[in-house]
Amino acid sequence: LVCELLCVGTELLLGDILNTNAQFLSREMAALGIAVLHQSTVGDNPLRLREALETALERSDIVLTSGGLGPTADDITREIACEVMGEALLADAEILAKLEAFFTARGSRMTDNNKKQALVPQNGRVLENHNGTAPGICMEKNGKCLILLPGPPRELEPMFRESVKPLLQKYADGVILSHTVHTMLLGESAMEARVRDLMDSANPTVAPYAKSGEAYLRVSAKAADLQQAERIAAPVLQELQARLGNAVYGLDCGSIEIAVVRLLAEKGKTLAVAESCTGGYLAKRITDIPGASQVFACGIVSYSNDIKRRILGVRAQTLEAYSAVSEQVACEMAQRVRQIGGADIGLAATGYAGPGEGAGLSYIAIDSEDGTRSECIQTGRTQDRDYNRYVSASRALNLVRLFLQGA
Amino acid sequence: LVCELLCVGTELLLGDILNTNAQFLSREMAALGIAVLHQSTVGDNPLRLREALETALERSDIVLTSGGLGPTADDITREIACEVMGEALLADAEILAKLEAFFTARGSRMTDNNKKQALVPQNGRVLENHNGTAPGICMEKNGKCLILLPGPPRELEPMFRESVKPLLQKYADGVILSHTVHTMLLGESAMEARVRDLMDSANPTVAPYAKSGEAYLRVSAKAADLQQAERIAAPVLQELQARLGNAVYGLDCGSIEIAVVRLLAEKGKTLAVAESCTGGYLAKRITDIPGASQVFACGIVSYSNDIKRRILGVRAQTLEAYSAVSEQVACEMAQRVRQIGGADIGLAATGYAGPGEGAGLSYIAIDSEDGTRSECIQTGRTQDRDYNRYVSASRALNLVRLFLQGA
Repeated sequence: LVCELLCVGTELLLGDILNTNAQFLSREMAALGIAVLHQSTVGDNPLRLREALETALERSDIVLTSGGLGPTADDITREIACEVMGEALLADAEILAKLEAFFTARGSRMTDNNKKQALVPQNGRVLENHNGTAPGICMEKNGKCLILLPGPPRELEPMFRESVKPLLQKYADGVILSHTVHTMLLGESAMEARVRDLMDSANPTVAPYAKSGEAYLRVSAKAADLQQAERIAAPVLQELQARLGNAVYGLDCGSIEIAVVRLLAEKGKTLAVAESCTGGYLAKRITDIPGASQVFACGIVSYSNDIKRRILGVRAQTLEAYSAVSEQVACEMAQRVRQIGGADIGLAATGYAGPGEGAGLSYIAIDSEDGTRSECIQTGRTQDRDYNRYVSASRALNLVRLFLQGA
Repeated sequence: LVCELLCVGTELLLGDILNTNAQFLSREMAALGIAVLHQSTVGDNPLRLREALETALERSDIVLTSGGLGPTADDITREIACEVMGEALLADAEILAKLEAFFTARGSRMTDNNKKQALVPQNGRVLENHNGTAPGICMEKNGKCLILLPGPPRELEPMFRESVKPLLQKYADGVILSHTVHTMLLGESAMEARVRDLMDSANPTVAPYAKSGEAYLRVSAKAADLQQAERIAAPVLQELQARLGNAVYGLDCGSIEIAVVRLLAEKGKTLAVAESCTGGYLAKRITDIPGASQVFACGIVSYSNDIKRRILGVRAQTLEAYSAVSEQVACEMAQRVRQIGGADIGLAATGYAGPGEGAGLSYIAIDSEDGTRSECIQTGRTQDRDYNRYVSASRALNLVRLFLQGA
């Protein structure tokens, strides 16, 4: 049983928006144990959309589309899909009433172009949209299942979870279970060299990938049920973690910030951060995580020397003697913010984010009752401000992780 | 002349990574005036990769692939592409030497699996990789152009700019010029209702899209050269801006934070921010922009009431009387951070990010020598922490924009 995704929208072909739907839907289908073998994108063009739909329905059992269900004139997915499936489109009075209620609730008037969102195929099933105006549609016919979803992720994602997932359960043949081992401080090929032999395994499969200065390993096991899949994956996961040692910061933990917030909560510790080059990115990543308020004391973004002195209390002579981008200033920032915030741990980052010559250098420091520890980072990417900021923040968070794990 | 993209990688089909390459390449091709009509993704599977490459080369003149050029065993794009193009693969001594130098410079040893990255097609052109180990490859044959690029965006993007763009100039037939009108405070369908008649135009085309609480209009003009394209687009752009009034925060400005940093620099003003619910997101977005250091005084992330009192100096009685999530506290935060930071403008956000009941409510405030102004925001999305934080930060930045524009 295979599935494919077809994303519709000229804005995708022009690169105006990032296709997060393909990732979301792929991940969800993988969790259902249904293999996605193709992802395609076409524009709001009737001919190419029809062709793409025909190809997809020929080679796959389940086809999910996203986009083109909205109120504007270039939204044509509903119409073309019904033509391809041989289904007539009829106006649905209930949906029309809901549409009107939606606009009234927001204190606005429904414009005429919204009405076409109330058209549904004669033998289709309507998928309610709790976060927007365009309902989704499911058609099952001739052994094929075609599901049309709205383009905006804020509408597509809840609709998938609420309506599509229960509907697809009957197609799921066993499960694919995936676990991800997250590492920091190892490159992709260095990581692979350590675990190469394990990558020849067929079930579970072991695959490496790299992202923003980190390297991951995905372990996927296929079995009749979750429990059995877990049993298949367990020994390989154990072996990987043993070989990669404390470069591993988590299993399925999503990100270093999730790992850190969890560890802080477990150990009952609080964190205060002082940021120069990362400019709020550290605080932002920590507070991305629900529940961060229990462990996050405060953040101070001190870009200039003046603010480093006045608000943080970094000594003028340290700034003069070593410059703002130095191990010494990073350490004082960490010490001072820990005091100011009344926290167990102080964390700091100072560096050149760039773009420009010398960018990619930063110093990170951690302060606790055990003393102060710092690290120098050189990304070697003088032109990549966002990468430099991201990696400085990640590595600073990793200092907290290593400290809390007693490494 | 049409182009298509083929992204290769099982990690994309499993949803492990987000496909930013498709967006980047599409946007770059659009700027060259070369239409991208299809984007496809297949896994690291020889059969399906070959099939996808054959389909792509049949229907398109230019095919760009990304991914599968790396050192690991599942990287097969180079091999399959050469088979499809009928090209032999030979080891290149120069690339091998560079690979060795790359690892030596980073103080590590080259593992054997890296050597296959030195294989190049007999009649292909090598595209240097200054940010990684896998070189790109270009093959032009039988009227088709096939370009293989590495998967990591940090390698693909500079390689495209440095090597691929100059190479593709000869294929560009005229140009497509795109301008984007950015609006805040209008929904997509409300925006469309105001400009519906302009969307029937064929050249320039006018297309709406929505993203994270904002609505955009893309105006695209096709012409022999840039100057002529600008002349075609200008009257429509003018009309759109006139109709949408001060909901428009910028033209091609990328984001509200870019608009704000530019306006601050133009007017010679500085900004200090105090954040509760946004937790550093405001500061992060401002300091994302190179040159922010000239206009950004400081940021204070004050999650708890204790920190709001101790570091910001918000009065205890205000917190008690109105609670932390209130107009009054937002105003005091803005006033206090402006004083502390010695800035022209103080900006604050406090609210419930969620997820949970009541989430999506926030108060934002701006303080300047003209006084204090605040706004209440209700996103209505109780489960979407990231959206709520993003929209609070965007709307807070929009207050600065409106203030600096004297609106």
